Amino acid sequence: MAAATDGRLKTVGIFIHPQIPAAPALAREIARWLRERGIRVWETDSLDEDAVLPDLRGTDLLVTLGGDGSILRAAHHTAGHPALILGVNLGRMGFLTEAEPDGWEEVLGHVLRGEYWVEERMMLRAVRAGGRPAQDALNDVVVGPGALGRVVHLEARVDGDLLTTYVADALIIATPTGSTAYALAAGGPIMPPQQRNILLVPVAPHLSLDRAVVLAEGVRVRVVVRGHSPASLILDGEVVAELPPGDAVEVEASPYVARFARVRERDYFYRTLMARLVPRR
Amino acid sequence: MAAATDGRLKTVGIFIHPQIPAAPALAREIARWLRERGIRVWETDSLDEDAVLPDLRGTDLLVTLGGDGSILRAAHHTAGHPALILGVNLGRMGFLTEAEPDGWEEVLGHVLRGEYWVEERMMLRAVRAGGRPAQDALNDVVVGPGALGRVVHLEARVDGDLLTTYVADALIIATPTGSTAYALAAGGPIMPPQQRNILLVPVAPHLSLDRAVVLAEGVRVRVVVRGHSPASLILDGEVVAELPPGDAVEVEASPYVARFARVRERDYFYRTLMARLVPRR
Amino acid sequence: MAAATDGRLKTVGIFIHPQIPAAPALAREIARWLRERGIRVWETDSLDEDAVLPDLRGTDLLVTLGGDGSILRAAHHTAGHPALILGVNLGRMGFLTEAEPDGWEEVLGHVLRGEYWVEERMMLRAVRAGGRPAQDALNDVVVGPGALGRVVHLEARVDGDLLTTYVADALIIATPTGSTAYALAAGGPIMPPQQRNILLVPVAPHLSLDRAVVLAEGVRVRVVVRGHSPASLILDGEVVAELPPGDAVEVEASPYVARFARVRERDYFYRTLMARLVPRR
Amino acid sequence: MAAATDGRLKTVGIFIHPQIPAAPALAREIARWLRERGIRVWETDSLDEDAVLPDLRGTDLLVTLGGDGSILRAAHHTAGHPALILGVNLGRMGFLTEAEPDGWEEVLGHVLRGEYWVEERMMLRAVRAGGRPAQDALNDVVVGPGALGRVVHLEARVDGDLLTTYVADALIIATPTGSTAYALAAGGPIMPPQQRNILLVPVAPHLSLDRAVVLAEGVRVRVVVRGHSPASLILDGEVVAELPPGDAVEVEASPYVARFARVRERDYFYRTLMARLVPRR
Repeated sequence: MAAATDGRLKTVGIFIHPQIPAAPALAREIARWLRERGIRVWETDSLDEDAVLPDLRGTDLLVTLGGDGSILRAAHHTAGHPALILGVNLGRMGFLTEAEPDGWEEVLGHVLRGEYWVEERMMLRAVRAGGRPAQDALNDVVVGPGALGRVVHLEARVDGDLLTTYVADALIIATPTGSTAYALAAGGPIMPPQQRNILLVPVAPHLSLDRAVVLAEGVRVRVVVRGHSPASLILDGEVVAELPPGDAVEVEASPYVARFARVRERDYFYRTLMARLVPRR
Repeated sequence: MAAATDGRLKTVGIFIHPQIPAAPALAREIARWLRERGIRVWETDSLDEDAVLPDLRGTDLLVTLGGDGSILRAAHHTAGHPALILGVNLGRMGFLTEAEPDGWEEVLGHVLRGEYWVEERMMLRAVRAGGRPAQDALNDVVVGPGALGRVVHLEARVDGDLLTTYVADALIIATPTGSTAYALAAGGPIMPPQQRNILLVPVAPHLSLDRAVVLAEGVRVRVVVRGHSPASLILDGEVVAELPPGDAVEVEASPYVARFARVRERDYFYRTLMARLVPRR
Repeated sequence: MAAATDGRLKTVGIFIHPQIPAAPALAREIARWLRERGIRVWETDSLDEDAVLPDLRGTDLLVTLGGDGSILRAAHHTAGHPALILGVNLGRMGFLTEAEPDGWEEVLGHVLRGEYWVEERMMLRAVRAGGRPAQDALNDVVVGPGALGRVVHLEARVDGDLLTTYVADALIIATPTGSTAYALAAGGPIMPPQQRNILLVPVAPHLSLDRAVVLAEGVRVRVVVRGHSPASLILDGEVVAELPPGDAVEVEASPYVARFARVRERDYFYRTLMARLVPRR
Repeated sequence: MAAATDGRLKTVGIFIHPQIPAAPALAREIARWLRERGIRVWETDSLDEDAVLPDLRGTDLLVTLGGDGSILRAAHHTAGHPALILGVNLGRMGFLTEAEPDGWEEVLGHVLRGEYWVEERMMLRAVRAGGRPAQDALNDVVVGPGALGRVVHLEARVDGDLLTTYVADALIIATPTGSTAYALAAGGPIMPPQQRNILLVPVAPHLSLDRAVVLAEGVRVRVVVRGHSPASLILDGEVVAELPPGDAVEVEASPYVARFARVRERDYFYRTLMARLVPRR
């Protein structure tokens, strides 16, 4: 058990998904509850990127009200900051969230008393050629098609060695966290979140390498757009750039991690995994 | 062995892929060779849809110079006409073509002497709600995302019965011919082309039904766009419509078939299948 | 709605799985209930093959008390007889059963009043070389290893044409009914039970054809044991023969079908399928 | 580049597969060639386990004449010894071998001149309950069925936490080296050989967890035989024990590694991988 700094939270930010009707009221309720306990609270619309950063300095905990998508955005913002993330699940799935809407009070109570542990999860860093700024992802870096209904031809290199050229809908480069997201849908293996590996999973590969490849965290993966069609670069589900033919992206482990406040047992991953993947009998 | 009508070809159309450099010269060569043998010949750019139909009446054979994509377009044009299709492979794969570029003379010689057989392949018919015209596909009808990097929520019904609701990149509804195209890339089973079944294969299904479903040719599949994101309707690789949430597509066996002139042995499918799927040792 | 002969059951056999503790008492209860309604009843141990046949003549309905395995045995016995099968589920899964243990009275009540429909399911027939008797299977014919921990080399032919040579743990040749049994575990597609197709699914194929192949019901599949290791022939889960290298098995649609009395809606297959394959959310 | 001890080989053992006709003559040829260069040589039948150990002390290099199976046996023998392994491929596949039969002279010449590098590959250690000796595997530890045509029920725990209970033909626990062997056939991901991870891949899982799981090298996997049927324990393809219901096996990274002498470029893995998995076009 460890706390963010001296074991006591002083400042909490609340991330409100603007399109979930229940979120604003819940945010007010949580903010009141926290302030009654002497905590400084700020709130923001989770889609308003610019509003977040000034407030993040000095923040100990970021509470997200939304689904896994809200957590991904929180992870992007807190990369490189000490703030912990704690998600209240207002979404469909909740692989990453820690509390259900009717259980937030108990969970936050534990956290305020220092009864939590910190789970660090590896992130990926994507760098495009030409001096563009690096970007980090918690789930995955995807090189997908540049237009609907198209395939991409993608040359993949590992530390300079040619792995293969994929002809596919997309190539997913995923963290262990991402192994239960898009990479899972595309047929990839599952990795417990504390692992540090990089996973390559093609989506609908056409007569090209169709197996997932598991790499060590230290490698650098280079993806070059081959063929005549442009590709797109997608980080944690958001299209961030178009990649013309010949363009390349380099992906490696980020120096930053996402840090979660957890009150559940440390074996929670396996428990929730099975509940989500295999029907009960 | 059978010929299109009385065993003798009178008129041949040539479909020229406009972006393949070698195609125009090859077209002139084939046209000259055919005219020397008393055959009437017309030629057209295979991407110019309007130019084709007037010429198609009275045509016995359509020779395509391109890849499998050119064959798909030829199949769309000849649906409902007696014209046979014969593909000369200028593309990458050639699952559907009958001759390689240096073997067209021998193949066409066989056809002129009536030494060929006719292979009929099932097509699918897609009908959207609201009185829009039906469209036929030889490989597949795909309901995909309406925007890059999105998933679709698709309710699938078989003869009215709810099969499942997919959360996926796309749902492929394929013919046996299409079973070795996109459906194969997405993990579906292989069906010999003479079969008459309808195949459902989701692409990257996320915690929803992840197995291909094989249906009888007589069924009607209804796909309804659920969730808040629009979908797109893709026929044989071409995006033909956007489908807003709530919209539906009905897919069933088309009354038309694609008719191919074949000179290879009738077991050619299994031979070429293995050469494409499994490395030689 | 139709009844076995004139709409009224006269004779019912009860198949009791001898290793399920609850089965004998339930059998007595059902037998009493049926006799009170004027039905002739006989009972037998479902594993005692010889005891069944004399009684089967004149039997309208066979009630199985066990799991899907008991149904498979009932199907073997009733192949070629008019008797219908109705399974009460005392097993784990119950893809084939019609009633749960606490619902048999309502289900049998429906059947006695003629309120049921008959579902016919395709079976496969396996014939070994050398004049040995043919055997029928409702789920699958499997050619597996002849010893633990070994792979088999199996040449597969479809109507005489070479499909491929598998190097694998086993080759499953399945009916649509079997598509949700072992073939499903091995990665095969799902086929609704009313379909009439033959499915080939290799188990753990090693650098050989790894996709399921869906064939028409009219084909004949020939499997020849290649390599130096013997194989085994397994019908509906029971090892029935060892196949030395060079030996062959021919598999095709059986002239017989398995006939089930059903009181559920005709779309029950899709409903139960989803409950078994995809976790509820 | 590094040599076994001081850069010069003094003693070489040759492992001869007794059932490959070409092996004895090749062994004589290689032995003569080595002795002409001042190397001490001993030879042995690779299946005769007891004959090997006395000779292994002081041996710098073990040359195997056979397939990957011969390499696996060599790895079992050299576990804990400094001897390097170098395989001449007389088998079918040769994922692990370094020279083809007509190229051994060039390869051994490189090795004698110290022009090679040492590739260390992780092994697994399997320990059964009850004080039985530990056994090491280079490819995989498999818990399979105890009788032909049966499934096993296997509870899998990772560092004490319950992962899941598999109902399957088998559970493969593989090293990165094993990721291109049986685990690949069962649908698992590929791991480059220098990786240090443990891979769990079920074979034909029936309505239970069907995804591969990638674990860190430091974990301990415990597999308990559940249900009423016995299982078998298979190490690198050899059945070594029957496991009655209730019995357990613990698997973790071995303290030993397999050490290979390599003369190929360090990126050889990706090159040979693609040649084996994807047909050339």
